[in-house]
Amino acid sequence: MLNFDNDYSEGAHPLILQRLQERNLIKQIGYGYDEESKAARELIKAACGLNNSKAEVFFLVGGTQTNMTVLDALLHKTQGVIAAHSGHISVHEAGAVESTGHKVLTLAGKQGKLDAKAVASYLQVFYADANSEHMVQPGAVYLSQPTEYGTLYSKAELAALHAVCQEYQIPLYIDGARLAYALASPFNDVTLPDLAQLCDAFYIGGTKCGALLGEAVIFPQGAPRFFFTSVKQHGALLAKGFVVGTQFKVLFSDNLYTKIGTNAINLALDLSKILEDKGYELYLPTKTNQIFIILKKEQARQLATKVALSFWEQLDVNHEVWRIAISWATTKEQVAALVEVL
Amino acid sequence: MLNFDNDYSEGAHPLILQRLQERNLIKQIGYGYDEESKAARELIKAACGLNNSKAEVFFLVGGTQTNMTVLDALLHKTQGVIAAHSGHISVHEAGAVESTGHKVLTLAGKQGKLDAKAVASYLQVFYADANSEHMVQPGAVYLSQPTEYGTLYSKAELAALHAVCQEYQIPLYIDGARLAYALASPFNDVTLPDLAQLCDAFYIGGTKCGALLGEAVIFPQGAPRFFFTSVKQHGALLAKGFVVGTQFKVLFSDNLYTKIGTNAINLALDLSKILEDKGYELYLPTKTNQIFIILKKEQARQLATKVALSFWEQLDVNHEVWRIAISWATTKEQVAALVEVL
Amino acid sequence: MLNFDNDYSEGAHPLILQRLQERNLIKQIGYGYDEESKAARELIKAACGLNNSKAEVFFLVGGTQTNMTVLDALLHKTQGVIAAHSGHISVHEAGAVESTGHKVLTLAGKQGKLDAKAVASYLQVFYADANSEHMVQPGAVYLSQPTEYGTLYSKAELAALHAVCQEYQIPLYIDGARLAYALASPFNDVTLPDLAQLCDAFYIGGTKCGALLGEAVIFPQGAPRFFFTSVKQHGALLAKGFVVGTQFKVLFSDNLYTKIGTNAINLALDLSKILEDKGYELYLPTKTNQIFIILKKEQARQLATKVALSFWEQLDVNHEVWRIAISWATTKEQVAALVEVL
Amino acid sequence: MLNFDNDYSEGAHPLILQRLQERNLIKQIGYGYDEESKAARELIKAACGLNNSKAEVFFLVGGTQTNMTVLDALLHKTQGVIAAHSGHISVHEAGAVESTGHKVLTLAGKQGKLDAKAVASYLQVFYADANSEHMVQPGAVYLSQPTEYGTLYSKAELAALHAVCQEYQIPLYIDGARLAYALASPFNDVTLPDLAQLCDAFYIGGTKCGALLGEAVIFPQGAPRFFFTSVKQHGALLAKGFVVGTQFKVLFSDNLYTKIGTNAINLALDLSKILEDKGYELYLPTKTNQIFIILKKEQARQLATKVALSFWEQLDVNHEVWRIAISWATTKEQVAALVEVL
Repeated sequence: MLNFDNDYSEGAHPLILQRLQERNLIKQIGYGYDEESKAARELIKAACGLNNSKAEVFFLVGGTQTNMTVLDALLHKTQGVIAAHSGHISVHEAGAVESTGHKVLTLAGKQGKLDAKAVASYLQVFYADANSEHMVQPGAVYLSQPTEYGTLYSKAELAALHAVCQEYQIPLYIDGARLAYALASPFNDVTLPDLAQLCDAFYIGGTKCGALLGEAVIFPQGAPRFFFTSVKQHGALLAKGFVVGTQFKVLFSDNLYTKIGTNAINLALDLSKILEDKGYELYLPTKTNQIFIILKKEQARQLATKVALSFWEQLDVNHEVWRIAISWATTKEQVAALVEVL
Repeated sequence: MLNFDNDYSEGAHPLILQRLQERNLIKQIGYGYDEESKAARELIKAACGLNNSKAEVFFLVGGTQTNMTVLDALLHKTQGVIAAHSGHISVHEAGAVESTGHKVLTLAGKQGKLDAKAVASYLQVFYADANSEHMVQPGAVYLSQPTEYGTLYSKAELAALHAVCQEYQIPLYIDGARLAYALASPFNDVTLPDLAQLCDAFYIGGTKCGALLGEAVIFPQGAPRFFFTSVKQHGALLAKGFVVGTQFKVLFSDNLYTKIGTNAINLALDLSKILEDKGYELYLPTKTNQIFIILKKEQARQLATKVALSFWEQLDVNHEVWRIAISWATTKEQVAALVEVL
Repeated sequence: MLNFDNDYSEGAHPLILQRLQERNLIKQIGYGYDEESKAARELIKAACGLNNSKAEVFFLVGGTQTNMTVLDALLHKTQGVIAAHSGHISVHEAGAVESTGHKVLTLAGKQGKLDAKAVASYLQVFYADANSEHMVQPGAVYLSQPTEYGTLYSKAELAALHAVCQEYQIPLYIDGARLAYALASPFNDVTLPDLAQLCDAFYIGGTKCGALLGEAVIFPQGAPRFFFTSVKQHGALLAKGFVVGTQFKVLFSDNLYTKIGTNAINLALDLSKILEDKGYELYLPTKTNQIFIILKKEQARQLATKVALSFWEQLDVNHEVWRIAISWATTKEQVAALVEVL
Repeated sequence: MLNFDNDYSEGAHPLILQRLQERNLIKQIGYGYDEESKAARELIKAACGLNNSKAEVFFLVGGTQTNMTVLDALLHKTQGVIAAHSGHISVHEAGAVESTGHKVLTLAGKQGKLDAKAVASYLQVFYADANSEHMVQPGAVYLSQPTEYGTLYSKAELAALHAVCQEYQIPLYIDGARLAYALASPFNDVTLPDLAQLCDAFYIGGTKCGALLGEAVIFPQGAPRFFFTSVKQHGALLAKGFVVGTQFKVLFSDNLYTKIGTNAINLALDLSKILEDKGYELYLPTKTNQIFIILKKEQARQLATKVALSFWEQLDVNHEVWRIAISWATTKEQVAALVEVL
């Protein structure tokens, strides 16, 4: 059966496995102090245009873990984090952020995106409220690029959000679980160096972008105090830190991270166009590696016997939104087979 | 330079990398629902003699993460966990257990081991105390096999601890970060099926025993309520659960987990004997893959220029305890080179 | 200057101070085990029609503390609590519930009230979601009677909410910070015995209803495990428990709690009618001791020089909602003086 | 029956009840912003010799609550607090500190007292440890004056501890639950102004020293960021803050706080001497309002039929330590009656 269920179904890019193989029996220092991890950090900093000595890079294992660890480190104990209603931290992380004691303060988004004006308005109203010291102080802003809906923030939009955060002196944190697919999109105008300028912390996703597992957290202006110990305390520190470091070294050598994204984006945009030509209605214009199509309920049931897709949401009584996910490993042949079925 | 610093310096057993390679581009279901993980769970249950339908196996990523996640799931919010003063959760996990709200209640151990009588006495005194409802209730017992000092609990000792726990109806949880080295030791009489009978939860370490990373948690009588969601909430759920599942499938095929331990134990016991013959004083009799030797300060400084060992503790003004760690990947040649130096 | 800012501006009902005075130098047992507290618990149970042996009553100090302590005791670590967007726990308690690790799952309310159908729909959608085990499980429902807007749940509405909770086997918890004013309202048809039948936990507010401080938590079917210790752990256990117990003994002798509410309600309803007659527009029909009026901005500024009211919210560019709060201690003369000013 | 069980059995000093009565129906601002609380804060600052503008005073309700709230505000999320094994936060607060995520790092004390050298040694060893970033960083020092054993720190001892804290730039926090009894002791040389100089935060106990309830927290150099909101978040903020403020205003007018202590100390020292003269063995020399005597088991059983004392600990098979507590309200007649019985 065909499978377009998600973008974390396959293992790692072959070059990654090859490198792990080559280094396998070489003794390496633990906890990320090894040479591979060091090299990976330098490659990432270079790709982000971070030549300052303050910038720091850490390797963690998964997305939920990264979000909860970074936000817990950024937030004062009395603070919460602003996110869109549909933000991954608010909906699909089992309350990990709240389990560290912090409220997720949600605002309505547009296609999964936070709006700078809405955030500014929220902050203004908060500080104007005579009762604000009885309330959860907004202590950071969270967004994902691309969003959970595959939509993209433009550079201007990010700059506007960053300006609001700067005004209120709270950090902007960007979840880049699928960042490779944003970077490779023709609809995107936000580069890695832009991100490094426009936020206080972000992570470059590995798990969904070609690694076996692992996420790289970047603090362009330096990490919060005691962050290494925070990582340990959250159970996020790998004894064999080199397992993730090595993978990011490969991903950031020879532009692999960009290439991985490009392949997926090309396939996704082609497929999206074919679907529209065939008369399928898209729920959202396709911008990255996720295609959201509207299907009649019966249509969806039939399709489900031949191809695994992700149910997204109920649109109305008769229609449903389904997600087709393309990954770095998806092949032209697989897409062709899907087109056949559709 | 020679390196006997720890047992997590190398990658994975070659058969593991081979299997990851074979399965690399096969699409697998996420979050541990894949076929490899399922097979691994069955192999582990079989190795533990768990044929009942209640037993459950989960795959997590690292030791601190596993300890905090399991203990948080086992403990009521008002409870703490009993451990030896030297227990890993008490000393070397950055307060991960406390970060989930639970006190670690420490008792003096003997060579890192908890004594059943001491635990029984603690529990008896606690419940006899008129103020006990103002205190942290002991809600579980934690120990590691082998301990942080490489010592081993005998089957009789575990049975005695288990009986105390049963009497007070609190779970016994065993940290098996280095379990392969316990299982392979000639000084050990506790098998996997014994463990499955004598505790309520334990984990079989992968990270230090041949895997790239990963730990297998076993609940012989079933997991606590909502454990899957607990794992997610602690940031411990891998999207690509198959990365760990696959590794444990390999480790529990053809007795690999046992073989891995045996190689290390043989080398460690040989080396330990040679050291004694050469006049080195051991801090503790060698039982597993860790050798603790007493060195004069100067001796240690000189040695440090040729071989990486772990400083353990200050014995007295002139002497220090240092640890030599043998891993599944250590070779005869490496040991011979070390003997040369010593 | 006149003051109708809130209902916690005065001390305690004179009979309470008198009783504290009488008992002042009598040695009493600590932590709520004294005779006054015992008597108070029995009086409360009787008032709630709870003659069963399971019912338990605890005395805590304040509202936020009570909400966080009770909810933390009711919820599994992976669960959150459903509340209206305007729910006190979600907006005005500084994230106390989240600080114990639990998400507040908010639904749109109507005039501050949760709707049984909306809750049922939320629960149904949640359990139908294939990803629900990655999400925060709704583990309890929170509401306040009266609500933050002074509105009231009818007995039928509570019964409907209770039925939904029963169906999903989750507790219904009712915040009665201002319960005296609900019980005394002619618009109310929910008695204390009704509450005891229709929820799993509720608290009878003392702080805003005639006590110096203190809230009485009732668990009609028994408290969660180890609740006494939970109270202690949350810093909510008074050494001198009798200070609160004595007050509730007075409040539940000779129907004082009801009388206290009645006086306030009578004044509030009279005042509300006078305001309407004078042409003031109410934001919501007055049901309890809080009157919400709509004022033009300038009007509000002028009024603010003569009487202290609470700003509630911005209605539109030119209008604001302000709250007039009547307490158990408000006198006819004070109301007359306010009418004069208005 | 006679009762010397503890020092929180009675209500409040008569002058306190009188003042509460006088102010009872005067409308006061909530949350500690009232005039009584303001005046109380100024009186406390004056008594502490704090004329700087930085010093801040907050009123909380109980001891456990105060300790958990203050320590949670002082500690970074990765830090723990150093205390004596017998420290109240470690033993008798139901894990309140751990429930906020912080480990209590215990050191052996002498008669309940921490030793500056032991603390310095702990800190030195910690920072010398190559693994310290994997461990809980000591982020504050906690002690109580008087201690749980009624012993006193001298000014020199506190200065030494403070110097160690200064050297490591961590705050020293002093629990003064029974501070009135320390201040009034002839064995004490530490004044309130000394305390204000020698620590970063301390609290002046009200509950056990003449108030109905309430503790006053002093931050001589200013409170941690957002402390008001922290108090709220911990459920420790009283709507009727004036209930505690008023009491402290009375306690710090006309030296009442000192007088209250003096009466108790005089009675305690007299009684202690009488007991020694009668041949009773003291477990510790009596320094404050608590007398610890050694009784044979049978003796204790007999005594228990006539007078309520507190069991303290088992000394050996045949002997037990019992505590006689004198409070601000204890009378000469009560002591005489106790002498009669003994």
